Amino acid sequence: MGAARGGILKPDLAGWLRTTFDRAPTDQGPFDRALTHGSQAAANYERLEFLGDRVLGLVVAEWLFERFPAEPEGALSRRLNALVTGAVCAQVARDLGVVPFLRLGKQARDDGAHDSDNVLGDVMEALIGAFYLDAGLDAVRGFIRKAWAEKIEAHAQAPKHPKSALQEWAAAHNRRPPEYEVIDRSGPNHAPRFTVKVVIGKLADATAEGTSKQEAETAAAAALLEKLGN
Amino acid sequence: MGAARGGILKPDLAGWLRTTFDRAPTDQGPFDRALTHGSQAAANYERLEFLGDRVLGLVVAEWLFERFPAEPEGALSRRLNALVTGAVCAQVARDLGVVPFLRLGKQARDDGAHDSDNVLGDVMEALIGAFYLDAGLDAVRGFIRKAWAEKIEAHAQAPKHPKSALQEWAAAHNRRPPEYEVIDRSGPNHAPRFTVKVVIGKLADATAEGTSKQEAETAAAAALLEKLGN
Repeated sequence: MGAARGGILKPDLAGWLRTTFDRAPTDQGPFDRALTHGSQAAANYERLEFLGDRVLGLVVAEWLFERFPAEPEGALSRRLNALVTGAVCAQVARDLGVVPFLRLGKQARDDGAHDSDNVLGDVMEALIGAFYLDAGLDAVRGFIRKAWAEKIEAHAQAPKHPKSALQEWAAAHNRRPPEYEVIDRSGPNHAPRFTVKVVIGKLADATAEGTSKQEAETAAAAALLEKLGN
Repeated sequence: MGAARGGILKPDLAGWLRTTFDRAPTDQGPFDRALTHGSQAAANYERLEFLGDRVLGLVVAEWLFERFPAEPEGALSRRLNALVTGAVCAQVARDLGVVPFLRLGKQARDDGAHDSDNVLGDVMEALIGAFYLDAGLDAVRGFIRKAWAEKIEAHAQAPKHPKSALQEWAAAHNRRPPEYEVIDRSGPNHAPRFTVKVVIGKLADATAEGTSKQEAETAAAAALLEKLGN
């Protein structure tokens, strides 16, 4: 539904907000800002995205905590990370019909920002931030659980740990199992940095850093999986 | 205050919880679990820490959003990261007198886990998770704002960005300014990985990865600052 104003058919933002969030905002200002890219105005979505990112993190964490009472912390973390990526947030934004309401500068429009996962993902988080400020945690919890409902059920199992996934990839492709080696350790004892290299025979390798050997190995496995097209 | 039981003077957990959280818990179970290290029992603090980490993140993010209305997202993120490190959470735990209530296995006790920033930081987040489940967001917001009050006011300015801090370090030590170079780019277009090397003349270098050039440069600057003892 559009309303003609000054000869241009403008999409009806107030109506869309009312439908999407199941109530009219007390103050539409933060929602306007959540839809505004830095290329369009200094009053853009960045601060609201900072807030909304943490709102989404808590609501999804609490939901996973309830929904998967037998899973250890590592499995919950991997589920959470998979549910709050920019690509998933962007998909939710598209499904909700955010695109016509984006406020982009000319350059960003020309660069295709209206279809960028980065921009749409950030806008989705900023809208969550705006709704949290407007209506509080209970309302935003209801909104997120509805918008993410299919996504949380999509995986019967928690996503695999990168090291397990790499191990399975190697076995499935008749390759030698991954080997990990710490190639550098720096930083003071209370804040060490490890650099780990992972190789699959002579096929491929990747290197990554972390604050523990385990973290660096995980990052290296993820980097190698990405190189291998996974 | 202790109560003698079976000849051993046990610290009074129920009394400590009442004083610390300003109310008696509806169910003490999650608090027991939040104080329990993995070396002591399978029912340990790890899942509650997963939840509490996000509760703390939201409460601090919202507080910074209000308290520093003119700061851009980058400055708020740096403040947040500085306020929720393991070391800061551990300090809050010590200040609140958590240590006598820790439940550690023998090996962890012998390894000094009662004074480990990692363990105490995790326990602090787990206690926040337990209190959130017990009393909700408003109560936990009040608790965190009191426990972190001095810490949020301690920095008149947001912590410096690692690239600015490295630039200033080089100038203060009469060294050449840091130079950044992308030495590797991998991954598909929609999920690139950049490896950046930063050097200060011939003095020192560090390498790090990120999902953007800017992120990899920031991580490399942080790694080099750490090598230089900052």
